[in-house]
Amino acid sequence: MAEKKNNNILRNFNPSETRGKIITCKAAVVYGPEEAFKIEEVEVHPPQKMEVRIKILFTSICHSDVDAWKAQPESRRAFYPRIFGHEASGIVESVGEGVNDVREGDYVVPIFQAECGECKLCTCEKTNTCESVSYTNTVMLSDGKSRFYTTDAKPIFHFLNTSTFSEYTVVHSACVVKLPSVADDTRILKRLTLLSCGVTTGVGAAWNVANVHSGSTVAIFGLGSVGLAVAEGARARGASKIIGIDINPHKFIKAQAMGVTEFINPKDEEKPVYEKIREMSEGGVHYSFECSGNSDVLRDAFLSSHEGWGLTVIVGIHLTPKTLPIHPMELFYGRRIVGSMFGGFKGKSQLPHFAQQCLQGVVKLDDFITHELPFHDINEAFQLLIAGKSLRCILHL
Amino acid sequence: MAEKKNNNILRNFNPSETRGKIITCKAAVVYGPEEAFKIEEVEVHPPQKMEVRIKILFTSICHSDVDAWKAQPESRRAFYPRIFGHEASGIVESVGEGVNDVREGDYVVPIFQAECGECKLCTCEKTNTCESVSYTNTVMLSDGKSRFYTTDAKPIFHFLNTSTFSEYTVVHSACVVKLPSVADDTRILKRLTLLSCGVTTGVGAAWNVANVHSGSTVAIFGLGSVGLAVAEGARARGASKIIGIDINPHKFIKAQAMGVTEFINPKDEEKPVYEKIREMSEGGVHYSFECSGNSDVLRDAFLSSHEGWGLTVIVGIHLTPKTLPIHPMELFYGRRIVGSMFGGFKGKSQLPHFAQQCLQGVVKLDDFITHELPFHDINEAFQLLIAGKSLRCILHL
Ligand SMILES: NC(=O)c1ccc[n+]([C@@H]2O[C@H](COP(=O)([O-])OP(=O)(O)OC[C@H]3O[C@@H](n4cnc5c(N)ncnc54)[C@H](O)[C@@H]3O)[C@@H](O)[C@H]2O)c1
Ligand SMILES: NC(=O)c1ccc[n+]([C@@H]2O[C@H](COP(=O)([O-])OP(=O)(O)OC[C@H]3O[C@@H](n4cnc5c(N)ncnc54)[C@H](O)[C@@H]3O)[C@@H](O)[C@H]2O)c1
Ligand SMILES: [Zn+2]
Ligand SMILES: [Zn+2]
Ligand SMILES: [Zn+2]
Ligand SMILES: [Zn+2]
Repeated sequence: MAEKKNNNILRNFNPSETRGKIITCKAAVVYGPEEAFKIEEVEVHPPQKMEVRIKILFTSICHSDVDAWKAQPESRRAFYPRIFGHEASGIVESVGEGVNDVREGDYVVPIFQAECGECKLCTCEKTNTCESVSYTNTVMLSDGKSRFYTTDAKPIFHFLNTSTFSEYTVVHSACVVKLPSVADDTRILKRLTLLSCGVTTGVGAAWNVANVHSGSTVAIFGLGSVGLAVAEGARARGASKIIGIDINPHKFIKAQAMGVTEFINPKDEEKPVYEKIREMSEGGVHYSFECSGNSDVLRDAFLSSHEGWGLTVIVGIHLTPKTLPIHPMELFYGRRIVGSMFGGFKGKSQLPHFAQQCLQGVVKLDDFITHELPFHDINEAFQLLIAGKSLRCILHL
Repeated sequence: MAEKKNNNILRNFNPSETRGKIITCKAAVVYGPEEAFKIEEVEVHPPQKMEVRIKILFTSICHSDVDAWKAQPESRRAFYPRIFGHEASGIVESVGEGVNDVREGDYVVPIFQAECGECKLCTCEKTNTCESVSYTNTVMLSDGKSRFYTTDAKPIFHFLNTSTFSEYTVVHSACVVKLPSVADDTRILKRLTLLSCGVTTGVGAAWNVANVHSGSTVAIFGLGSVGLAVAEGARARGASKIIGIDINPHKFIKAQAMGVTEFINPKDEEKPVYEKIREMSEGGVHYSFECSGNSDVLRDAFLSSHEGWGLTVIVGIHLTPKTLPIHPMELFYGRRIVGSMFGGFKGKSQLPHFAQQCLQGVVKLDDFITHELPFHDINEAFQLLIAGKSLRCILHL
């Protein structure tokens, strides 16, 4: 039964042979900003205390990978050589000392937003930030070293706690979530890959951060996977109007099928986008979401919400040094603006239930997968996202 | 009985003689930015539809008066001649057509933040903003005219819907709140004057906007009446630590008596104030309040709150064009920042109950009154506030 479902994908998976040893496998290594991915052999060291080594089965590409890959040295976010990737699913190959909540053979997704479960922040229900394991880590916390090495023994930097563009990766146990047992069917596992970042980020922004209510109006800036996951979350909550805004008109067809009810292409508008949105929503939407990562959109997103109660949620990653384009007095009219990381989900404790909801159809996952390619075509997959042609392209390892 | 309590203050009050007529009385008129107040005769026209004419008995000075009085023509907020003042109490002299909720002889406070009770915003419980009557009005809404004229018939601009530096004023009925009947005792009325702006603004920021919880930690930037009213509100809610920050060390003595538990004078500190506050509050306060009106303080206020759950409430009025000194990504760590106007109170419907609470001692009003002067000493009273010597100076009309 398991064999049938898993389509032989685990042919070469034999943890008893690799446990405790260095694994030599393929990874997509990048040697400098915006350089092509090189699929080459790397050495993946065994997991240390509170670490988990995962055999990655699927990985996809999120805009945050693109941003990090483009980061120039002066940004201080450029670390090379590096293994990118943070949206993936796989099977636990082995665990380090002290890891009790997952074990060899478990189907999991890695998560960049850790949940150690013990720090001051993790034990507070108001936040999903973890004080112990930061997503800015570039090496492992326990010993300050990498678990990835080139075949000539040079360390390779980790990315976003996860580094999933590799056949094997090592993550802190706070960054791994055990999936429901049905994930042993790889058709299901493939879909649940999206919970590793994009879908969770978007749906959670709508559910946990904005708490979108039935009958409300919503505006979403940026209709990539994250923006459309917000739409999906808002639709599931019964929003009456979901306005999608994107400068790429090709996004509109897909978006319509996914619950977006009206569209604005800012390039087609003469008046400010926020004015257009206010006209379409009796003075402003209840909730607006910035999911484009473009800072120029922030002011429109803020002003498109209704005075008195409007809430703007920043989801996109903003890498310019520009501060918020909002005057302090503009907050006096009751519009609020907040940030949302990983959809406000505490990954380890809340994702298993969210996965169940997705599998029950509360959130539809299939539409997000627009392309599938073998791992060695990662450069092509990257270009698909950059060109705005894909939502998520699943790479098969 | 009423006579005894009212100390003859209403000797010359005879509405049946003035109703429907122009009243000639004394007002403090200002003819240009930062020019001295001139106490002179003005003509106050009768209230029109949905308007109320009030005989002012007490007025005090808030920092917002100082800011408006300093506004230069290029700010587009300079309108002259003008009658300033917005924190006051008095007795209704007459009402215009359609006013049913107050009548001649009622003791009232004017409020700059209107509550028409009927607009889309007023009928929503999430906000205290009113769509119909804006506090930026400089003339009356019904006919676009002033109710104040100089004796040579030049119109005088209104201020903040209230213009209380006058023996009589006319306000929109959405800007007048009827006080509990005990306010016919002028000793009580004098204290309730503070509910017209400063105390309501501060206590409400703590109660309605931040919703300060028992045992929480609080930082307050600016220890004028507004900041100290926040302290009073936080103390009433059982905050365990209330850190006051002011560059004027004289504020500390008074503040201590009013519930502030620790002090920081930024001028005495080498490290950033937010670091000092984080040290004093196990990583950051639950709630920080900006009550100085100084934009340079905003970033410290934001960063002094705890990541994951910290909330910064902007109460001070910021007149520089500087936008928020916060990077969008800084919102990703769970700190929030919001604005608070008139303490989030819906004045007309919620102030009567708040007045009762104050009279029952939940909030102590007496300590805010540091000076009392006759109306004609208004210039002196202004200087007391500007010099940081007074909290509230009550002017007796
Ligand atoms: N906060 C988080 O936890 C989190 C997690 C994942 C991704 N993100 C961020 O979310 C954003 C979206 O990610 P994605 O994977 O969906 O990206 P994507 O590239 O698939 O989608 C971005 C969309 O924004 C559109 N866009 C660009 N400029 C625009 C503009 N000026 N106006 C309107 N639309 C515009 C693009 O055409 C595109 O459709 C990125 O910034 C990503 O880094 C944040
Ligand atoms: N949002 C509202 O509804 C509302 C209502 C009333 C007043 N206000 C505003 O609240 C603010 C306070 O009003 P107030 O009447 O209490 O004024 P105030 O002048 O009595 O008090 C301001 C205090 O801030 C202190 N201060 C100035 N610069 C500072 C700095 N850099 N760091 C720390 N402290 C500093 C001053 O020393 C003073 O003690 C003003 O900006 C006023 O316009 C807002
Ligand atoms: Zn992502
Ligand atoms: Zn933690
Ligand atoms: Zn005021
Ligand atoms: Zn209203």
